[in-house]
Amino acid sequence: MMEPYKLYYWPTIQGRGEFVRLALEEADVPYIDVARGKGGMQAMIDVIAGGRDGRAAFAPPVLQAGGLLIGQTANILMFLGARHKLAPRSEEGRLWCNQLQLTIADIVGEAHDTHHPISVNLYYEEQARESRSRARDFVVERIPKYLDYFESVVRANPGRGGWMVGSRLSYVDLSMFQLLDGLRYAFPKAMEAYAERWPGLMRVSGRVAARPRIAAYLASKRRLANNEDDVFRHYPELERGVRVKPLRG
Amino acid sequence: MMEPYKLYYWPTIQGRGEFVRLALEEADVPYIDVARGKGGMQAMIDVIAGGRDGRAAFAPPVLQAGGLLIGQTANILMFLGARHKLAPRSEEGRLWCNQLQLTIADIVGEAHDTHHPISVNLYYEEQARESRSRARDFVVERIPKYLDYFESVVRANPGRGGWMVGSRLSYVDLSMFQLLDGLRYAFPKAMEAYAERWPGLMRVSGRVAARPRIAAYLASKRRLANNEDDVFRHYPELERGVRVKPLRG
Repeated sequence: MMEPYKLYYWPTIQGRGEFVRLALEEADVPYIDVARGKGGMQAMIDVIAGGRDGRAAFAPPVLQAGGLLIGQTANILMFLGARHKLAPRSEEGRLWCNQLQLTIADIVGEAHDTHHPISVNLYYEEQARESRSRARDFVVERIPKYLDYFESVVRANPGRGGWMVGSRLSYVDLSMFQLLDGLRYAFPKAMEAYAERWPGLMRVSGRVAARPRIAAYLASKRRLANNEDDVFRHYPELERGVRVKPLRG
Repeated sequence: MMEPYKLYYWPTIQGRGEFVRLALEEADVPYIDVARGKGGMQAMIDVIAGGRDGRAAFAPPVLQAGGLLIGQTANILMFLGARHKLAPRSEEGRLWCNQLQLTIADIVGEAHDTHHPISVNLYYEEQARESRSRARDFVVERIPKYLDYFESVVRANPGRGGWMVGSRLSYVDLSMFQLLDGLRYAFPKAMEAYAERWPGLMRVSGRVAARPRIAAYLASKRRLANNEDDVFRHYPELERGVRVKPLRG
């Protein structure tokens, strides 16, 4: 039997760790969400700071797989994708998944900066004015730029089944679900207005949510609720009065 | 003979493409910097928008390697690292390089946002006030947080020679050179004040600059000059009056 993976991530938020949790859940492999257990926060801090052989990580998430310690979300997913058939086997397919995942990481970073445009060392309330400006730009310009792009990717995919890459689910589909879920939580009015603009992505998202293991996970206590310490935050004032273009063109 | 690689990137800036250029130069492989040639901008736009088989990229750089089209800087470097001995062969070593490169990508993104904290769709001059706040935080808090981390990585590396990973130069060393070079251009006073804080990184940077192929490249016209359309920009007002801590503690 395989030794369980250990995931080191903040215990009270979905955050970037959630992309890893979704992959572990879909792969149906045993894992320990270390920081959510007793003494787990200190274990997480120790692994981030020291790692094995001094290979510290800059930030969580970190995945421990036997003797391996792997940091950076996209890096972890690339590893899990290859091990658990959550990515194509070909070099071309693996690189393409990684490219898409890194582009998802880019928009996730921008989503974070809508509530922290000046400094991660200040509270949102201390940069709320600048957040209004950044969030407006994000909702009006950046969300459609990224999601139009991802919609074009799913439409151009020659594989059957409506997945992002090829003819099977990959970790990119899981991450697309998580991205859309987060955007809907943070900017519900805007995402409602955009509802019909990205049918291919909505289909991906719906199919992921309907996967038996993912559905069970989302209904379980393992899935943490959205909240305002997370990457995706709902501050109603950040989309108040913001007009979006429901369709392309 | 190998077909030359084709690099698709903006022709007037170092930007994120420079991390790829440095790897290609050190590997001493033939490549065409497509957008710098006649008709090259249109070729770049076409590749980004359509790619092969509709595999568009969200943004440059894109590397064409025979029939492969690869986007996202860290993804391209991972590919080149494996092909041209610019990364360890072991899975562990490759993942570690990728983890470090993604962390470099994170600070590069934050460096960009010092002059564009609100929107990439506005000029710097339209967000100069917010840039002052963001740049102060970047210089005082973020640069030391990242570079203290990278310094700890180079110090903990058991390999000989003072490289970032193992006992040989990897693409992470090339990228560390480029990061430090960019930070010194953008924030010369702060980086001068920090001069003695990261001796291990300065050594990496110096050794990279002294590599014969890199030295020849840096002295050539292929190396574009820093400028204020680039990721690293020098606006003196962004570090005016900013005090940093020269040493840790």
